[in-house]
Amino acid sequence: MAIEDFLESKNIRLDQQLRFTAEIDKMTSILRRTMLVDGSRRENDAEHSWHIAVMALIFEEYAAEPVNVSRAVKMCVVHDLIEIYAGDTFAYDVAGNADKAERETAAADKLFAQLPSEQGAEIRSLWEEFDAMQTADAKYAACMDRLQPFLHNTLTDGHTWVESGTARPSVEKRMAIIKDFMPEVYKWVETNLDNALAQGWLKA
Amino acid sequence: MAIEDFLESKNIRLDQQLRFTAEIDKMTSILRRTMLVDGSRRENDAEHSWHIAVMALIFEEYAAEPVNVSRAVKMCVVHDLIEIYAGDTFAYDVAGNADKAERETAAADKLFAQLPSEQGAEIRSLWEEFDAMQTADAKYAACMDRLQPFLHNTLTDGHTWVESGTARPSVEKRMAIIKDFMPEVYKWVETNLDNALAQGWLKA
Repeated sequence: MAIEDFLESKNIRLDQQLRFTAEIDKMTSILRRTMLVDGSRRENDAEHSWHIAVMALIFEEYAAEPVNVSRAVKMCVVHDLIEIYAGDTFAYDVAGNADKAERETAAADKLFAQLPSEQGAEIRSLWEEFDAMQTADAKYAACMDRLQPFLHNTLTDGHTWVESGTARPSVEKRMAIIKDFMPEVYKWVETNLDNALAQGWLKA
Repeated sequence: MAIEDFLESKNIRLDQQLRFTAEIDKMTSILRRTMLVDGSRRENDAEHSWHIAVMALIFEEYAAEPVNVSRAVKMCVVHDLIEIYAGDTFAYDVAGNADKAERETAAADKLFAQLPSEQGAEIRSLWEEFDAMQTADAKYAACMDRLQPFLHNTLTDGHTWVESGTARPSVEKRMAIIKDFMPEVYKWVETNLDNALAQGWLKA
């Protein structure tokens, strides 16, 4: 059952690509702290990655610089792949974030080596660009990556903020990229931060 | 709790876009017949859409015609959105497929009207192009959409085939687009069809 039953083709590249495809299905079992909008359960990395990829088709007009939406969509679908081995690091977990870079680099080495080398390098480079948050495309993708869980939290009574005892300044820090890169969207974020504080979902 | 708690911004377009983002999270509760690779549960539409979008970054070299991968990735992330209202129609369900087009058109009318009109039209057009399977990009995306559940079935003892009592010719018909558009990949499909028949996962 599962990958040990994989029947090889006579094409080594194709086998690598199909095995990689099977391997990344593990994204469906990497749980995030964020709840689904309906509050029924935590979302997983596959769901989150899909969600922000669709968002990237919609929010371009608010970007402070011209964005290549196609590249941003690609970044969105691959940006969390390394969590298959590194696990999800909660945005407001100080200890977890201390060794995040190290864990994720090791995970990337392990994961992308499973693809034909030029394909592994291409996807790794998209992830690295996303992670560095320096280019317009990466900033835009990062905004989607922050806006989506923020929206979910506002619609689930601040679930992950309450659960983790998060304070408003931590969320503001996390949302700073939206403030810089999508100021019009940040106005809405700010309204919700005020509300979250008033509701007691966030500490002061 | 949930969408009734949505705080409006002073920007009608932004509100539409954020509400649409919340609405499409329902993709996470549209279950497909296909199991996850680890056999633990059925996959949902969000997971499936994400999975084939990543695949579209990888399998281009087997396409019979030049493909615009970026457009295909976009198609992959939006191709099942209408199932939020139309539901998932199992590929081998004859009755369900009889009124599929009608249900899906009504679903598209309802769904895409929730976006600013030019954005709704753009995403609808990607879905329609995917569904018509006439362009190279759509054929490529359709191949990913067929190859992914096929791979999952081969790794889960033919789960959906066994459960539905499917016969090999039905699967061959479904995989015909791969035979045409990705003949090298189809060789591997054929090896697995032979095996599925030998294992009793498919009827003759």
